[in-house]
Amino acid sequence: MQHLVPLDNLVAALSRLPGIGRRTAERMAMALVQDGRGLMRILANALLEADEGIACCERCGSVTLSGINPCDLCIKPRRDAHILCVVESPGDIMKIEQSGGFQGRYHALMGKLSPMHGTSAADLRVDKLLHRIADEGIEEVLIALGTDVESDATASYLKEVLAPRDVKISRIAFGLPAGSAIEYSDAATLARAISGRQEI
Amino acid sequence: MQHLVPLDNLVAALSRLPGIGRRTAERMAMALVQDGRGLMRILANALLEADEGIACCERCGSVTLSGINPCDLCIKPRRDAHILCVVESPGDIMKIEQSGGFQGRYHALMGKLSPMHGTSAADLRVDKLLHRIADEGIEEVLIALGTDVESDATASYLKEVLAPRDVKISRIAFGLPAGSAIEYSDAATLARAISGRQEI
Repeated sequence: MQHLVPLDNLVAALSRLPGIGRRTAERMAMALVQDGRGLMRILANALLEADEGIACCERCGSVTLSGINPCDLCIKPRRDAHILCVVESPGDIMKIEQSGGFQGRYHALMGKLSPMHGTSAADLRVDKLLHRIADEGIEEVLIALGTDVESDATASYLKEVLAPRDVKISRIAFGLPAGSAIEYSDAATLARAISGRQEI
Repeated sequence: MQHLVPLDNLVAALSRLPGIGRRTAERMAMALVQDGRGLMRILANALLEADEGIACCERCGSVTLSGINPCDLCIKPRRDAHILCVVESPGDIMKIEQSGGFQGRYHALMGKLSPMHGTSAADLRVDKLLHRIADEGIEEVLIALGTDVESDATASYLKEVLAPRDVKISRIAFGLPAGSAIEYSDAATLARAISGRQEI
């Protein structure tokens, strides 16, 4: 059978999407080829429009329209400008916004410390964070990283770097997730919930 | 948070890929936004090039370069022009070619009978199959469909439609897959292997 270079290239490009192996990419490519409703072109156009129209905010790292940079979250006067929420990625900002639990500003590190993946402190947007703390009169840095080892290491590193600054450092609470029962909780979650207990 | 139309459109387009739900599409879109190596544009270009350069052969339905239509498989003189292998989709043609077990020509139905998915006989390329049988002097039609209910229904339908024609109808064998043991076979596979037994 002849070699179909455009098909091979499509499979290779699809394989680079997160969580997509070669088999899945092949299945996707064949579905796109057979699709009679122009999905191939619809997807290509959506990608080109997103590539043109979407950017990461140069200040906080959040996803924004290319024309609105710094983003809405950075410039809205209603938001508390004295508290910065530090997250791993722009997706985390969207999640926290959806929760409605935070009204300050954000700072995405664009990664976390991970020797396994070759991410060191220099790869994170920590320099920018320090500049912002100085320039914007930040009073509190709320670290909103996950509970995995790499997040813990990143939080410790931030705590160390921020210690000399005149800024309050907090971290989001760890404990039982909403709607869960003690019965179904794992030991590590329970231990963290107990050590983080609060007076009521 | 402001509504990012290009991002929403990208998520919607990615959700239309087979096996991709909304959550996965969102994760993919965010990975594409954050990717610093131009993956968004690479994927868009691969899609556009495939859309331009890849087509389904108008004769057999196989995947081919747009400029080579009918495809290589249809025009290669070395291939046996008297036997047509009927399959569900172009992907199946690639699979059978990779097996090296067939040297005739192909005909993809572009689907199978499926009341559940609203696919009726009129949606399949059966008319074209009948024309080809008459025009190309086909002597044998080898039905290479799977073992599911819909494939069985499609095979029965084809058998009925082809019965009045002067053509041998065969179907690929069902039995134990290569390298498997009786011990690990399911009852349905074993029953089919026994009923399809051959003299040795």
